[in-house]
Amino acid sequence: VTPESVLLTAKLAPLRQQLVDLHGVLDRSGLVAWTSGNISTRVPGEDLMIIKASGVPYQDLNSQAMVVTDLKGEVLAGSLRPSSDTATHAYIYRHMPDVGGVVHTHSSFATAWAARGEAIPCVLTMIADEFGGDVPCGPFAPIGDESIGAGIVETLNNSRARAVLMKSHGPFVVGPTPAAALKTAVLLEEIAKTVHLARQLGVVERIDQGAIDSLHQRYQCEYGQRS
Amino acid sequence: VTPESVLLTAKLAPLRQQLVDLHGVLDRSGLVAWTSGNISTRVPGEDLMIIKASGVPYQDLNSQAMVVTDLKGEVLAGSLRPSSDTATHAYIYRHMPDVGGVVHTHSSFATAWAARGEAIPCVLTMIADEFGGDVPCGPFAPIGDESIGAGIVETLNNSRARAVLMKSHGPFVVGPTPAAALKTAVLLEEIAKTVHLARQLGVVERIDQGAIDSLHQRYQCEYGQRS
Amino acid sequence: VTPESVLLTAKLAPLRQQLVDLHGVLDRSGLVAWTSGNISTRVPGEDLMIIKASGVPYQDLNSQAMVVTDLKGEVLAGSLRPSSDTATHAYIYRHMPDVGGVVHTHSSFATAWAARGEAIPCVLTMIADEFGGDVPCGPFAPIGDESIGAGIVETLNNSRARAVLMKSHGPFVVGPTPAAALKTAVLLEEIAKTVHLARQLGVVERIDQGAIDSLHQRYQCEYGQRS
Amino acid sequence: VTPESVLLTAKLAPLRQQLVDLHGVLDRSGLVAWTSGNISTRVPGEDLMIIKASGVPYQDLNSQAMVVTDLKGEVLAGSLRPSSDTATHAYIYRHMPDVGGVVHTHSSFATAWAARGEAIPCVLTMIADEFGGDVPCGPFAPIGDESIGAGIVETLNNSRARAVLMKSHGPFVVGPTPAAALKTAVLLEEIAKTVHLARQLGVVERIDQGAIDSLHQRYQCEYGQRS
Repeated sequence: VTPESVLLTAKLAPLRQQLVDLHGVLDRSGLVAWTSGNISTRVPGEDLMIIKASGVPYQDLNSQAMVVTDLKGEVLAGSLRPSSDTATHAYIYRHMPDVGGVVHTHSSFATAWAARGEAIPCVLTMIADEFGGDVPCGPFAPIGDESIGAGIVETLNNSRARAVLMKSHGPFVVGPTPAAALKTAVLLEEIAKTVHLARQLGVVERIDQGAIDSLHQRYQCEYGQRS
Repeated sequence: VTPESVLLTAKLAPLRQQLVDLHGVLDRSGLVAWTSGNISTRVPGEDLMIIKASGVPYQDLNSQAMVVTDLKGEVLAGSLRPSSDTATHAYIYRHMPDVGGVVHTHSSFATAWAARGEAIPCVLTMIADEFGGDVPCGPFAPIGDESIGAGIVETLNNSRARAVLMKSHGPFVVGPTPAAALKTAVLLEEIAKTVHLARQLGVVERIDQGAIDSLHQRYQCEYGQRS
Repeated sequence: VTPESVLLTAKLAPLRQQLVDLHGVLDRSGLVAWTSGNISTRVPGEDLMIIKASGVPYQDLNSQAMVVTDLKGEVLAGSLRPSSDTATHAYIYRHMPDVGGVVHTHSSFATAWAARGEAIPCVLTMIADEFGGDVPCGPFAPIGDESIGAGIVETLNNSRARAVLMKSHGPFVVGPTPAAALKTAVLLEEIAKTVHLARQLGVVERIDQGAIDSLHQRYQCEYGQRS
Repeated sequence: VTPESVLLTAKLAPLRQQLVDLHGVLDRSGLVAWTSGNISTRVPGEDLMIIKASGVPYQDLNSQAMVVTDLKGEVLAGSLRPSSDTATHAYIYRHMPDVGGVVHTHSSFATAWAARGEAIPCVLTMIADEFGGDVPCGPFAPIGDESIGAGIVETLNNSRARAVLMKSHGPFVVGPTPAAALKTAVLLEEIAKTVHLARQLGVVERIDQGAIDSLHQRYQCEYGQRS
């Protein structure tokens, strides 16, 4: 046991506990069924991330089930396997330095758009506020994990939205922190549902680009409390 | 500290607590996601209103997070920012003296009608009872807050319903008290859902105007307990 | 205070408490919004019924809010108004001696069928089991309460189902007891939802009459425990 | 009381308690309404199974309501009737020696596909993962229980999926244990809902067979923790 490893363990403990708490919020939000879905966090200042263990029921999650890996997805310590989506999360952290948290779900309405490979059009002020435009679709990435990560990063780099609907798969959401990404994941399902319902009974009109820009700008600046 | 300000503080305390309680009901009703949605109350006998602070999670709401403003939306005291919809609520109180409470949500089914800019037709006795006719749509108001409030007030002035679906945005509901407005907001989502479902599989017929009038009249007089 | 009135009060007390409990089940079942919906029970051996007071929130219901009326809907004692649907319940008890309980809701999917004035076709074994055939629609009865009751009784007299979807209004369900009627109301919403979903994406086939008869017969005899 | 019967009772006790717990999970999962739905378990090493009693409310279930029968569905002991689906479960255990648990529900979205007699196409990676291809439909079996069991077994024998949608009836799901079957039943409803939603607004593409095979293979090997 080196002094560095003692310091690192002390740094990881609160991050792992926060990740347990956020998975609790995810479970109660109705976005996940059974053991599906996962959240990860970058470890600030280290080339490390923490992610949920694979296939563990939400009610059994604790700090020990939050697996620490390097940014290639290799487990650092402990005997639990990390999420089967670990390589994808790691790819995102390697290629998007501003991302501090990633959320992946199969939430029903967002995944329905993903099944069709269809972007969610920006037809509501709340979409302009939170996503700044359409929520884009990414390519189908059949099996190689590298290709899923690459599809996500390329799609996000071409969009203001911090969420992407991977074709025939489901949504991946990023944010400066895992808490911010989780908020965006919850709002993504909400707008995926509302626009689905709207489209079922008729035509919906995209908000014009100038209004989208104004709404997004204002929301970034004026919503919430000054931190 | 003047005697007047002591009296005013005593007057505001129960109103702020009531608003905390009503936000709790709103949260549990399933009409809001994350921190979206807000309720305000007019302060009877004063040119003041109270509204939720911006972006505060529902589970963290307490009296301190209920911000007192004048009827132009200027904060009277405290350090928290009021809801980003404050100017709209204030406009309604300035122009509709009978309104004592305002509720704004993005509830899924009502917002789906709003996305299409389509009024909810009066095809059910419960719509005739509670709304006295169709629930109208208001114009899209891209960013200026004055224009949102003006669109709401103008639409409500031409309708028996105490609710309006603002185009590409969502519902605003008013009432003599915030509790009454909240009840109407809950029933609005209920009828928005039921008529949506009905229309998905066929044609629905509007109730004829005479029957609507009778139902509405009777509901106003005979439903509930004499107060 | 006569000996008879003392005996009657003792007879009513457990029925009123049971009705409080059943309204709790109704509230938790998701079939009602705000104060809508009501359950009544016949008082066995008397020309009396008990029904929920009008407009009282579900969480505030207690024995005092269960109003005793005669079978014309006239209140026997107490100061609370009975449900605004009391005359309809009373009509059913007067004309259907086998009915011991009535449930009325505006549950979303059943009411969507009612809005279209469309019977729910018997396309699932669980519909054959519980309803013995299609769930029929009754006429629109604009305001006179007598006409609502008459429409319900006439429709039920021509059907094996113990439920009717009143046009532009919602479902009324009857049973030998209020608990039995409540079970049927819950299953009605379930099948209203399932057939709605099935029909959204294609054609559904009615089960042939012989199979319906066999299923219904078997369910009546073999389901549940011998009492 | 023979030594064998004492041993058997000791063997059954934990299985019955586990079945009580799993019915609790089933109830909370939203897959069943009122008393519908049932789970059974094979008794390892015996020609016996255990299944829920017929028509008992979920909140009243305890070990005594878990009825032990032989593999022809004949009750071994106790006075409660087993589920009216007992003969079907027994048929499955007799003809599929690898099956250790069976779950039957009328969950809304899966039953909607069953009502149309339509298989759920493998259009999502989570379907490939869990089911290895389309979820198949079985024939309508009007009343003879033997024919329901036979239809289930024949359909499952021709499919990688461990679930079948019985025409005009609902889903039956099998697994090596009742817990595994329950997980599959929950995921079945989830994908039945998601593909339903996707299809409502457009065309969905089946994943190509090679990718399905890879996904299924990988999920079987790499998901979850090594046991």
